[in-house]
Amino acid sequence: MNIDGKAYRTIWYENNIVKIIDQTKLPHQFFIKDLRTIKDSIIAIKTMEVRGAPLIGATAAYGLVLSIIENKDKSFLQKSSEDLIASRPTAINLKWAVDRMMKKLLGVSSNEILKIALEEAQKIVEEDVEFCKSIGVNGSKIIEDIAAKKKKTVNILTHCNAGWLATIDWGTATSPIYQAHKKGIKLHVWVDETRPRNQGANLTSYELNEEGIPNTIIADNTGGILMQRGQVDMCIVGTDRTLSNGDVCNKIGTYLKALAAKDNNIPFYVALPSSTIDWSTKDPKAIPIEERDSSELSHVEGLDKNNKLQKVLIYPKKSKAMNLAFDITSAKLITGLITEKGICEASENGLKGLFK
Amino acid sequence: MNIDGKAYRTIWYENNIVKIIDQTKLPHQFFIKDLRTIKDSIIAIKTMEVRGAPLIGATAAYGLVLSIIENKDKSFLQKSSEDLIASRPTAINLKWAVDRMMKKLLGVSSNEILKIALEEAQKIVEEDVEFCKSIGVNGSKIIEDIAAKKKKTVNILTHCNAGWLATIDWGTATSPIYQAHKKGIKLHVWVDETRPRNQGANLTSYELNEEGIPNTIIADNTGGILMQRGQVDMCIVGTDRTLSNGDVCNKIGTYLKALAAKDNNIPFYVALPSSTIDWSTKDPKAIPIEERDSSELSHVEGLDKNNKLQKVLIYPKKSKAMNLAFDITSAKLITGLITEKGICEASENGLKGLFK
Repeated sequence: MNIDGKAYRTIWYENNIVKIIDQTKLPHQFFIKDLRTIKDSIIAIKTMEVRGAPLIGATAAYGLVLSIIENKDKSFLQKSSEDLIASRPTAINLKWAVDRMMKKLLGVSSNEILKIALEEAQKIVEEDVEFCKSIGVNGSKIIEDIAAKKKKTVNILTHCNAGWLATIDWGTATSPIYQAHKKGIKLHVWVDETRPRNQGANLTSYELNEEGIPNTIIADNTGGILMQRGQVDMCIVGTDRTLSNGDVCNKIGTYLKALAAKDNNIPFYVALPSSTIDWSTKDPKAIPIEERDSSELSHVEGLDKNNKLQKVLIYPKKSKAMNLAFDITSAKLITGLITEKGICEASENGLKGLFK
Repeated sequence: MNIDGKAYRTIWYENNIVKIIDQTKLPHQFFIKDLRTIKDSIIAIKTMEVRGAPLIGATAAYGLVLSIIENKDKSFLQKSSEDLIASRPTAINLKWAVDRMMKKLLGVSSNEILKIALEEAQKIVEEDVEFCKSIGVNGSKIIEDIAAKKKKTVNILTHCNAGWLATIDWGTATSPIYQAHKKGIKLHVWVDETRPRNQGANLTSYELNEEGIPNTIIADNTGGILMQRGQVDMCIVGTDRTLSNGDVCNKIGTYLKALAAKDNNIPFYVALPSSTIDWSTKDPKAIPIEERDSSELSHVEGLDKNNKLQKVLIYPKKSKAMNLAFDITSAKLITGLITEKGICEASENGLKGLFK
């Protein structure tokens, strides 16, 4: 998608270097960073220079390519794969991408391992682009239906960033929005700020601005009253891990919006490529919920009056804080799952109907 | 209550001057400000140097005293009362306090009007202190019951600041916490940050720290998963306007926590002095929901690395934001209302049983 009128992807490979848009610098700086080693890749994932389940998966796949460039020894590759999986615990795409790569590389000779690894990483990337586009085509029908009934601007609420910046291109939750926009449907997006890291404000609003889609940032507290007042027609969010029963583990706060949508009879959709499905579990308690450093809450970065970036402490010096990164939205609160293969009920049967 | 070991109230009268703790400066600076005119009082309310429904009411009452000191003309007083009521639209105590003062001052001679106004304002203040203390005594029994069953630390979640800083002393939602703490019950408070103005972090965590009550700040998005994981035993919040049917209009985001509490069978209480009851309406749609400047969302103030206060822009420059200040929590989500007269069901019958 576009930044300043120029088309970008979030990650690409060029002459043994992986290029990423450093998302910790957005929206105030647009900076393309080089990843040259497996360590660079792991740091990029841990510090959230790249984030979003599909993009984390792609970064991990390319990370293994960089690992092979560094050292063709199988034990080095094995260690790299383990370190990647451990770098963030909740998003399942990370493990999915690493497992897929390692399966492909098992028993491959050192002569051709780089070539095969690179091919597979590129395949993961291209598949994600294609899947995200299909999610958009499938999901845009829901928006079209609402537009046809309402005959006015369709108001969509989204949480965090499940935009193209969370994937390679198109996004998951934003892909139906981009597709509907291309068809000329009048849209407006309520963007949850998404504390503590403000990916809604910093990334979703930023990317919607760049695509010319009207949007308004709101505090995470605000979605409820907007729904009470009839100012939200539908919600679409992404997911970091979709359980086999249709429960969804996504950015913290998703659950609260799903409860409000249910209470106000507003459709609540989750958009996902199949790579986020964890077929191995239907127990939300079994999912590790990442706890990140509390300084992500207590400190905020922004531009001061001289247009210089400053990080400031916003909490009382004596106060403690806790920073959980995800929560669980029960399938019973979800109207449907929008996938690359179509839309299904958020349930084991729904998912199996599309994918097995 | 205490700040740095010294007992304070949030507002007091001294030699024709009203003294307030300027709450826009907390937690980084403790500053006592003088209000000398009706204009000072209105600015203090509008800019939230004082905030919290009961404290706004007290400031308005003292504002009328300052108005009389400035100008004893009845038309000046009338205009002052109208300007005060218009200064913030949602909290009902403001209108309640102004109406009570004006009723008292109707037909009073200019010889004794200042004396009578000051007496009535002091009465409003002392009543609030007494009512808040009674709320604490009544509400602490709920906490004691949980402690007796659980035999471990009781975890209480609160939203925004309904602490002593929102009243004159004791607070509403915090008063049961302070009373239970005095009885030696082990407590821990989850403090919702409460964007956009962060009154949870800046005021509630600050005042709990000063009273030695363990607390942890969390993003507003976090309460849901804590409830899912059994880490919240009860919720207590305040209210800016309690409808006669038991619905509650409180700081934006309250509704989302009430939904999560209901979904997880966690008791959700609202603490209020009777001055926040709006007997005239049971239609939540009839309540004006204040929309404040969007810069309260897009700009954040904190301490930079040199310990200097800086205000920074945290949103993309092109982005728009919307800042609604309150939402409505339906009575069906509320376990009980904790008042100065006891605890009742959140319903017309419940309220009438205690107050009529």
